[in-house]
Amino acid sequence: MNTPLLINNTGKMQAWSESARSRGLRLGIVPTMGKLHEGHLSLVRVAASSCDRVLVSIFVNPTQFGPGEDYEKYPRCLEADLNALAGEGVSVCFAPSVAEMYPHGQADNLTVEWGKKALCGAGRPGHFDGVTSVVSRLYNAMQPHVAVYGQKDAQQALIIRRMTESMLFPVKTVLGAIVRERDGLAMSSRNIYLDPAERERALTLSRALTRVGESLRAGERDPGRLQSIGNGALSGIDGVEPEYFVVVDPATLAPHENKVDGLLLIACAAKLGKTRLIDNHVYRIQGDDVRESMLF
Amino acid sequence: MNTPLLINNTGKMQAWSESARSRGLRLGIVPTMGKLHEGHLSLVRVAASSCDRVLVSIFVNPTQFGPGEDYEKYPRCLEADLNALAGEGVSVCFAPSVAEMYPHGQADNLTVEWGKKALCGAGRPGHFDGVTSVVSRLYNAMQPHVAVYGQKDAQQALIIRRMTESMLFPVKTVLGAIVRERDGLAMSSRNIYLDPAERERALTLSRALTRVGESLRAGERDPGRLQSIGNGALSGIDGVEPEYFVVVDPATLAPHENKVDGLLLIACAAKLGKTRLIDNHVYRIQGDDVRESMLF
Repeated sequence: MNTPLLINNTGKMQAWSESARSRGLRLGIVPTMGKLHEGHLSLVRVAASSCDRVLVSIFVNPTQFGPGEDYEKYPRCLEADLNALAGEGVSVCFAPSVAEMYPHGQADNLTVEWGKKALCGAGRPGHFDGVTSVVSRLYNAMQPHVAVYGQKDAQQALIIRRMTESMLFPVKTVLGAIVRERDGLAMSSRNIYLDPAERERALTLSRALTRVGESLRAGERDPGRLQSIGNGALSGIDGVEPEYFVVVDPATLAPHENKVDGLLLIACAAKLGKTRLIDNHVYRIQGDDVRESMLF
Repeated sequence: MNTPLLINNTGKMQAWSESARSRGLRLGIVPTMGKLHEGHLSLVRVAASSCDRVLVSIFVNPTQFGPGEDYEKYPRCLEADLNALAGEGVSVCFAPSVAEMYPHGQADNLTVEWGKKALCGAGRPGHFDGVTSVVSRLYNAMQPHVAVYGQKDAQQALIIRRMTESMLFPVKTVLGAIVRERDGLAMSSRNIYLDPAERERALTLSRALTRVGESLRAGERDPGRLQSIGNGALSGIDGVEPEYFVVVDPATLAPHENKVDGLLLIACAAKLGKTRLIDNHVYRIQGDDVRESMLF
């Protein structure tokens, strides 16, 4: 059980990657905010499948949290995270301080306009600017060939892929599937915030998504009706405050015009008490054929 | 006389740099907009002095030109530029199209707040956003260890260095000294716009800078008086429309508080007819000692 090399310093991180790359090694990174769970570990395995070395970053990024969000209380448990990574064949854990990641403060930024105001962006203005600003810094610090993200953060993955293409980063964006608890709840570092009653009600999200998936399989193709079904399933439950439920084309994050076809992202967000959760299903639809799919 | 390898495509550029880096080679780039002159060639030699391979980019970047500026008429002469680079030991000339550099259009950007509204930024809003947006893309496409810029674009060099540090690019920013014509005019691709009378009057800029340098050497240390001397020397000449003349601390781009001390940037911009020219002197002052200096 080899614990990864812990690096806190950007210069050391760059020197490590430069040395590995100059020996022809292919580097895959898994950017995380820590409090690692089975979902993160599955991304490590995805990275390992196409890379010679896997690096995990752990950084609770202040610029992607809004005022009143959970930046302060977000779980930080580096030692447990390093233990979770032991035995996964991870070479490096990059865990920089805020000052190390933002040496000149937080004003200089990389922003991607595409998609940033839709879905989660409506309720979290500035969130995706924070994401692209930290991911671009992580790419510069870690110099990966491949970066792996969870499909649970579908909008984030689409925006990061867009950023990568738009800014010409020589990095391949790769997705890992959502990992769920036995009862269907999507794994999330924020699930630890839930008390037992909230944990039970949290299933409302995955059940609403499943309900829409069933309608799809039963032949429903009307975007508005599918969205109504989802909204209905997410609403009217005590202790569950829906934020959005959308049925959209991942190419535009807007609904298909007349009937859903091709790739379909069904995504929702809701608050359980003070805890905001998100979840999604992705399908590929071809005529009568409806299959769960990766976003890309 | 070996002509450099011409690469137009980002993917090919990245593959070339990746291959070179994986063999342990150190890459230096000289980003240019083409119409190469002796100033550019001096930067190539600076790059060659610390790198195994030198790459020159030629790209007239639309996002750093404002409305009504000279984007359309900016000189484009790739063949002559390739000839100018022959014999300079340049490995690659990267000359992408606008679509290649901005595959998703020009909305997604990297912006550096520091310094962007001072000096040239006042008269050219958006200019430095365009500079940082293209330089970050060039870094991602060309993967340099070192990037060399001319001190003539002093503010640009300071902002790019700031960007590099702030965004954690693993790139060293290096400067080359200003190269001047025999009579003192700083070399610029825009000098070709000048008609003979304008070419003569263009000396007003370097003469105004020299006049302030003489006052410095004569012991003048008052920032306001030095600036007045420069403004006086730049003003009142038919056909020369001054834009600014400043005497500032390069660390802040603002004037020193009471007396000039340490590093000093004396910079000016003026229009000769339709042609906007800039020039600067940099001094290091320690007590009575006044020396010309590099910015960093």
